[in-house]
Amino acid sequence: MSPLPFQPQDPAFEPRVRASFGKQAAMVTLGASLQGVEAGRVVIELPFAPHITQQHGFVHGGVMAAVLDSACGYAASTLMPHDAGVLTIEFKVNLLAPAQGERFRMVGEVVKPGRTITVSEAKAYALDGQGREKLVATMGATMMVISGRDGIRH
Amino acid sequence: MSPLPFQPQDPAFEPRVRASFGKQAAMVTLGASLQGVEAGRVVIELPFAPHITQQHGFVHGGVMAAVLDSACGYAASTLMPHDAGVLTIEFKVNLLAPAQGERFRMVGEVVKPGRTITVSEAKAYALDGQGREKLVATMGATMMVISGRDGIRH
Amino acid sequence: MSPLPFQPQDPAFEPRVRASFGKQAAMVTLGASLQGVEAGRVVIELPFAPHITQQHGFVHGGVMAAVLDSACGYAASTLMPHDAGVLTIEFKVNLLAPAQGERFRMVGEVVKPGRTITVSEAKAYALDGQGREKLVATMGATMMVISGRDGIRH
Amino acid sequence: MSPLPFQPQDPAFEPRVRASFGKQAAMVTLGASLQGVEAGRVVIELPFAPHITQQHGFVHGGVMAAVLDSACGYAASTLMPHDAGVLTIEFKVNLLAPAQGERFRMVGEVVKPGRTITVSEAKAYALDGQGREKLVATMGATMMVISGRDGIRH
Repeated sequence: MSPLPFQPQDPAFEPRVRASFGKQAAMVTLGASLQGVEAGRVVIELPFAPHITQQHGFVHGGVMAAVLDSACGYAASTLMPHDAGVLTIEFKVNLLAPAQGERFRMVGEVVKPGRTITVSEAKAYALDGQGREKLVATMGATMMVISGRDGIRH
Repeated sequence: MSPLPFQPQDPAFEPRVRASFGKQAAMVTLGASLQGVEAGRVVIELPFAPHITQQHGFVHGGVMAAVLDSACGYAASTLMPHDAGVLTIEFKVNLLAPAQGERFRMVGEVVKPGRTITVSEAKAYALDGQGREKLVATMGATMMVISGRDGIRH
Repeated sequence: MSPLPFQPQDPAFEPRVRASFGKQAAMVTLGASLQGVEAGRVVIELPFAPHITQQHGFVHGGVMAAVLDSACGYAASTLMPHDAGVLTIEFKVNLLAPAQGERFRMVGEVVKPGRTITVSEAKAYALDGQGREKLVATMGATMMVISGRDGIRH
Repeated sequence: MSPLPFQPQDPAFEPRVRASFGKQAAMVTLGASLQGVEAGRVVIELPFAPHITQQHGFVHGGVMAAVLDSACGYAASTLMPHDAGVLTIEFKVNLLAPAQGERFRMVGEVVKPGRTITVSEAKAYALDGQGREKLVATMGATMMVISGRDGIRH
């Protein structure tokens, strides 16, 4: 991955993003953990686990989407002012292959930051026991920046 | 809701769909339960619960999407032959309002059934304690019909 | 189609929308004409013509999308203040069947109006010589409301 | 742009793709021309012209989408067998900035080729008079491979 050309507005974006992710109970439920946090990019890891599967034993596509959504949202969040929040307006996911693997790595990156609207993309890679990775899903998402609304921050 | 114009190919679609939903561990984890099953339409209910929230205390948009994905997929599945499976190729979700409420009702409907590709749509309604409902999310999804592949059925 | 529950902010929305559509040179090029304009809904008609086809002789899917995009945007525009403009942030289209027919009717409707973001949907119907219609495409679109920016109005 | 890892099934994919593009009357109408054709990637150029604009004088977002759709479809087509055709199932476009410029370059690339389903992505860049380029739109698209149907080839 190449370096991203973004200048964060909030120098303390990393602890802010980590604290917010820690408050996403849904991510804890699914087993996702936030790994890397850079300006414009976050990496989330999701281990395979039986409680997140669909009827064929793969990870549920909607679960993959939920973690990719967090990856897109927090990538956007790294470039926001300190007191701003991010809401997902919409996202689209393409499920390229069944989500089979030992664990999954979701990489979210900002495509275009904006004052009101930020567009992010994310990719999900399946990793097997030997560390080989395979692209299994892609997402494009639109985020809205929210400032100064009670209850909608970080 | 008006009656749907679809003729199921499999007269026993309802127990088949219910059995398959019962094998989606991810839906159990999130707390979703399958309510209505008709030819071309399913209804899933999701109670609000703290373990599926995001950082603002609303239900995580990705969790809403995961349940809507199941609604789209099982709506498609009602119209499939007995031995066919359904895989989600892609979906897009618009999150219209924060997912606040006592519980949520997801209604998935087939827009266009097909031999290889079926397109479904779903809507998520938030219900408050008085039974008032509000549209909070919409999804459009593309499903692929899979026949005769080991491990990919129902 | 049932009546829409929307109250327009601008009582003169219809001439405003018709004047703006008349300035979309791309719609003239494609042959599209604005038919109905109601609060929250517009109807656009597109006759089949050889200059808008793809390699199989059907109307190009991207041309269908371009007209559906205008349908979504002007549906949103009917509910806007007099001096506001609308920009499409994103849209997704599902092409359900080849765009074969004598002419096409695109119906755009607002799903959720908002101060900053409005979500619209549109459907494209193919009509044959006997007036029979068939659903051939669906769109979901997100629009941003723009106020008081030079050059971005109506 | 890095080299793509794809092996074409049809060694004569380039003349086949160029001949098919030449039959897309819609692209002629819009003014688009096919530039590069590689295995898994095509480049299309669209000069700015008044007949493809919207009401603010920018290129219509739907016109951008139509050309991006062709870029996604022909990128998929380069990897297809000689006698197969490609139909777009769905696409989503994010319009990141107004389509202002002297001309536009659309780059379509295959993300995941498949026997039945191929997923492509495309980006649109605006170029000014000095050759500076700016990303103005992104697309994700799903294509279906069609074999041996009369009237649906190339």
